[in-house]
Amino acid sequence: MDITTPSFVVLRNRAEKNIRRMAEKARRSGVTLRPHFKTHQSKDIGRWFRDAGVQAITVSSVRMAEYFATDGWDDITIAFPVNILEAEKIDELAASIRLGLLIDSPDSLKELDRMLRHQASVWIKTDTGYHRSGVLWTDSDKMLQLVQDMASLENLAFRGLLTHSGQSYHIRGKENHARLFTETAVRLSEARAALPGEWQHTCLLSLGDTPTCSAAGNFTGVDEVRPGNFVFFDIQQLMLGSCTEKEIAAAAVCPVVGVYPERQEAVIYGGAVHLSRQSESLADGTRMYGFVVPWKNTGWGPIDPGCYVRDVSQEHGIVRCGGSLRIKPGDLVAVLPVHSCLTMNLMKDTLRIIQP
Amino acid sequence: MDITTPSFVVLRNRAEKNIRRMAEKARRSGVTLRPHFKTHQSKDIGRWFRDAGVQAITVSSVRMAEYFATDGWDDITIAFPVNILEAEKIDELAASIRLGLLIDSPDSLKELDRMLRHQASVWIKTDTGYHRSGVLWTDSDKMLQLVQDMASLENLAFRGLLTHSGQSYHIRGKENHARLFTETAVRLSEARAALPGEWQHTCLLSLGDTPTCSAAGNFTGVDEVRPGNFVFFDIQQLMLGSCTEKEIAAAAVCPVVGVYPERQEAVIYGGAVHLSRQSESLADGTRMYGFVVPWKNTGWGPIDPGCYVRDVSQEHGIVRCGGSLRIKPGDLVAVLPVHSCLTMNLMKDTLRIIQP
Repeated sequence: MDITTPSFVVLRNRAEKNIRRMAEKARRSGVTLRPHFKTHQSKDIGRWFRDAGVQAITVSSVRMAEYFATDGWDDITIAFPVNILEAEKIDELAASIRLGLLIDSPDSLKELDRMLRHQASVWIKTDTGYHRSGVLWTDSDKMLQLVQDMASLENLAFRGLLTHSGQSYHIRGKENHARLFTETAVRLSEARAALPGEWQHTCLLSLGDTPTCSAAGNFTGVDEVRPGNFVFFDIQQLMLGSCTEKEIAAAAVCPVVGVYPERQEAVIYGGAVHLSRQSESLADGTRMYGFVVPWKNTGWGPIDPGCYVRDVSQEHGIVRCGGSLRIKPGDLVAVLPVHSCLTMNLMKDTLRIIQP
Repeated sequence: MDITTPSFVVLRNRAEKNIRRMAEKARRSGVTLRPHFKTHQSKDIGRWFRDAGVQAITVSSVRMAEYFATDGWDDITIAFPVNILEAEKIDELAASIRLGLLIDSPDSLKELDRMLRHQASVWIKTDTGYHRSGVLWTDSDKMLQLVQDMASLENLAFRGLLTHSGQSYHIRGKENHARLFTETAVRLSEARAALPGEWQHTCLLSLGDTPTCSAAGNFTGVDEVRPGNFVFFDIQQLMLGSCTEKEIAAAAVCPVVGVYPERQEAVIYGGAVHLSRQSESLADGTRMYGFVVPWKNTGWGPIDPGCYVRDVSQEHGIVRCGGSLRIKPGDLVAVLPVHSCLTMNLMKDTLRIIQP
């Protein structure tokens, strides 16, 4: 493999294993896996999910829905509060696929229905504690108003309650994440139980985030799960306890352009426009933008906690390395990213897949 | 202007004013303005610089050099430690334009010379205190070795000493920045003075960063300056004291997709993949990802310090707004970005230029 500039490398065997494990857990639980494709944004990688039996997907923009619809995906939920300015494109999508949309306000609901000519289904975005968007799970008046409003609509049909428990990123450890999964499922159930009986029967429950879905022993209590990041995992997930080092399936492979032994540092071609500026804290509080590990042409070596990107400029990564990494300009190193979704988004034009 | 998805909007009159001011200061000082084009990465915007008399430019990657070379720019410095893995493309560029490269190690120098068949000039990357890359300005032994090595090379000619005083981003206020400009120029001069006489005569001095170049009354003491960000400025520069609010020339215009009056928050379509995850701190220490201001079709309204993006997910921006901004789903707002270079890099496909 002839890498000369920063490249996003995916180890296919690891990613497929991650996919199969999640798909198997969903199957055992009798629950639909509707993985979030914002993580990889790649038709090629999307097909690995199809090979594992996945038929329905989640995306976070109209453009991503259009992209995957052209590769045969015909059941897509746009898990983002509906942007009514894109009603025209949404309508085109609704004409050709089974489209799911998110609503949390009566105004958007009516406006959207007015602008569509084709059928789509609607999830009520439910806030089960993350407080980013959605109707609070305890706000049964607002829930009721929304489902009643839907009864009179022409093109939008109620599908269920959908939440993202993003607060999972603020707690650590599989036990805590498994507990949050259960708590979130219970809160969705409580919100559903407050609806009139005729609505309860058809109301599906959907939740999804990688930490809780990785930690939960099974998915009992909901109808579908929507994790995304688990296909690659990353340093954030490792630190949260959601994966092991051997499950991380993606890295940014970067050329070394300078070495400064006197200060135990190096500079790589790989900065904020490749890795993103998302950081994690090391045990001593030091901020870091990814672990730097040896690159071995068909994979990478183990993490040395003393070897990491300590800062990023636009194109530069400044690497602090306590000693074990012997590098010189012209070598390649792999950076295990803090947040693989953002790194992949920045580097998607450089994707390289390594076959097992 | 029909904006339906997050779009990077540039006010041409403000940007051109920023360009003219910097070009005029360089002209008065008898110094070359070689602006850094990584900020905008746009041929269209590049031409505004040409209209202001600029003939030489800086970029931070081989790919950017190739891009601008196809628009008639024929004097380009790649202000990034040379990546010898790209020697082939560098050689192609050297065949067609006046190419400047950065070197800070004898090994890279020899390796590069061996791989080139066409002439390029070389700047010694000099570390005047930022400690990211380069030869320390006081390390005259290493400087001397590099220039002596260059004497025997076939394709690489010594051009001078080049530095980036990025520590300007760690101090605030025009006086401090002006002082740093002078200190940096003095350090470059000292490094040059330590070279043998025959090298001193042809050795140019180059420095560049927006805070010091905005603050300096003139550019006396160096031969060229390479600021980049000043074309747009941003919230980081405003907080550093490098610009006024009225000089900020770029914003991300984003659709509102949710409003939550009970917690004085809103959600916009505009997250980490649009704004980047670079943050600033408000006076009370609160982290923020850009100020949210009213969008008025041909420009934006004034900053309200209580109205800002308090967090970003991949596509969501969570807006905290103390009161003055009245918005509903389907409206557009403008986000004045923390770091316009990173925001532009993420949103370059969405560029919209507003003519005066």
